[in-house]
Amino acid sequence: MKDLGYYNGKIGTLDELTVPFNDRVHFFGDGVYEATLARNYKINLLDEHIDRMFRSAAMVDINIRETKEEMAAILCDLVKKLDCPDQMVYWQVTRGTQVRNHTYPEDMKGNLWVVLKPGKIKDLRTPIATVTAPDTRFLHCNIKTLNLLPAVLYAQKAEREGVYETILYREGGRVTECSHSNVHIITKDGVFKTAPTDNLILPGIARAHLIKACHALGIEVDETPFTLDEMMSAAEVLTSSSTAPIRYCNMIDGKVVGGGAPETVQKLIDWVENEFLEATK
Amino acid sequence: MKDLGYYNGKIGTLDELTVPFNDRVHFFGDGVYEATLARNYKINLLDEHIDRMFRSAAMVDINIRETKEEMAAILCDLVKKLDCPDQMVYWQVTRGTQVRNHTYPEDMKGNLWVVLKPGKIKDLRTPIATVTAPDTRFLHCNIKTLNLLPAVLYAQKAEREGVYETILYREGGRVTECSHSNVHIITKDGVFKTAPTDNLILPGIARAHLIKACHALGIEVDETPFTLDEMMSAAEVLTSSSTAPIRYCNMIDGKVVGGGAPETVQKLIDWVENEFLEATK
Repeated sequence: MKDLGYYNGKIGTLDELTVPFNDRVHFFGDGVYEATLARNYKINLLDEHIDRMFRSAAMVDINIRETKEEMAAILCDLVKKLDCPDQMVYWQVTRGTQVRNHTYPEDMKGNLWVVLKPGKIKDLRTPIATVTAPDTRFLHCNIKTLNLLPAVLYAQKAEREGVYETILYREGGRVTECSHSNVHIITKDGVFKTAPTDNLILPGIARAHLIKACHALGIEVDETPFTLDEMMSAAEVLTSSSTAPIRYCNMIDGKVVGGGAPETVQKLIDWVENEFLEATK
Repeated sequence: MKDLGYYNGKIGTLDELTVPFNDRVHFFGDGVYEATLARNYKINLLDEHIDRMFRSAAMVDINIRETKEEMAAILCDLVKKLDCPDQMVYWQVTRGTQVRNHTYPEDMKGNLWVVLKPGKIKDLRTPIATVTAPDTRFLHCNIKTLNLLPAVLYAQKAEREGVYETILYREGGRVTECSHSNVHIITKDGVFKTAPTDNLILPGIARAHLIKACHALGIEVDETPFTLDEMMSAAEVLTSSSTAPIRYCNMIDGKVVGGGAPETVQKLIDWVENEFLEATK
């Protein structure tokens, strides 16, 4: 198959497949999701993603029908059905199926959806440009939910301005994250600074691995908030996500940034290519 | 038909109908909605709801395929298909259909969904109990979007605690609204006080009509924020929504509230029954 959609056991191409009108996701964005890459039919860091999905679901009281092992088996089986070895692997669990109503039965069981399409890791050695915007999202950004309309608008803003990402900041200037990436800086003192994993950012899996990389490479890590001003004058500005585990930024809102610690950036990219993506080589 | 689902011209019962896997609402909650009652096959305040839907859509850059007149005609036609004259009329427009991607083509056209089911106005003369919770929603509460996961959790909290609604407040104690209603107070001086229509509350259609009622009845209106403390000691606490245009509250978080202006409450309920719902009699 060229691409694949899955819904509670039903499989079809993305264009053909249909789903029940009464899935609660239609009316409330009522679900949680995960996304990662597969290379050579092997899903990168699958267990870590499934663990996070179960944490997300628990935080919004969604009952997943499958065990972690069953979910992993379904995904590993599905990726083999695509004609293409390198894939974008996306899956979500929605709360359940019911005529529209805010409230739900406590024993409602979730619906599992999967989207597979060809997808490759981006070139990590090309710098990116970004823009900034006030962060107007809800206070549950630590949960990977399908309430993503602000993220859509931030991503579209980046697209319109011809840049890679929109970096968000809260009132007072604290930088949080981007529309679909975490953001970090390397300070002029050589410290890798990244926002703490509170309710304002997603605890990124690539972020956790970059911290691991810093420890391995002897780079000091500081998990405290940083401001727009600190970011604009940092030695380097980095973004990370599961599908682009490290990108370095040379322009924000049209102003030149970074470029002050190129060797550290290259070491981190090398580490990502050798370690983070190792499992799927 | 006992109930009805509609998707871009396709009609079926809610249980039978299916929709394309690639509708963007599945992945981002990417849409806007409206809901009101029909009585005797006539949709209450339809034009006001359609106007608000077009405003919501414009604010999140969704292109509605139908004109306002076409949308009204579709809805008025559909309500006739139900066996039941009194209905809950719900409709939404999602951004469009596309393999999952945050960004979208600028010329993408929306998908129209309708849900019809039997529904009657609730008994307005029975008091309600409520609970309170911190308002953790995004800063676009003035837009009636499908990013409703926090509202779902607040409604479920009310359900679990056996009460009608969860009243929300922001840091600092400002009362905003409820999971699916606006909230107002009548002060001890007899003033109808309701939060201003900024980005923290939905500009409720029932709310606007209650203000109109106050003007007609000689009740002073003050559209400024009020706090939890003000609410707990107010003469009356009221909620409003299109399906329950006025309810009065006699208990919040287990504490007795209101009861200080029963005649004003009765006058407002009379007005709602005579004027707000007049069109659908």
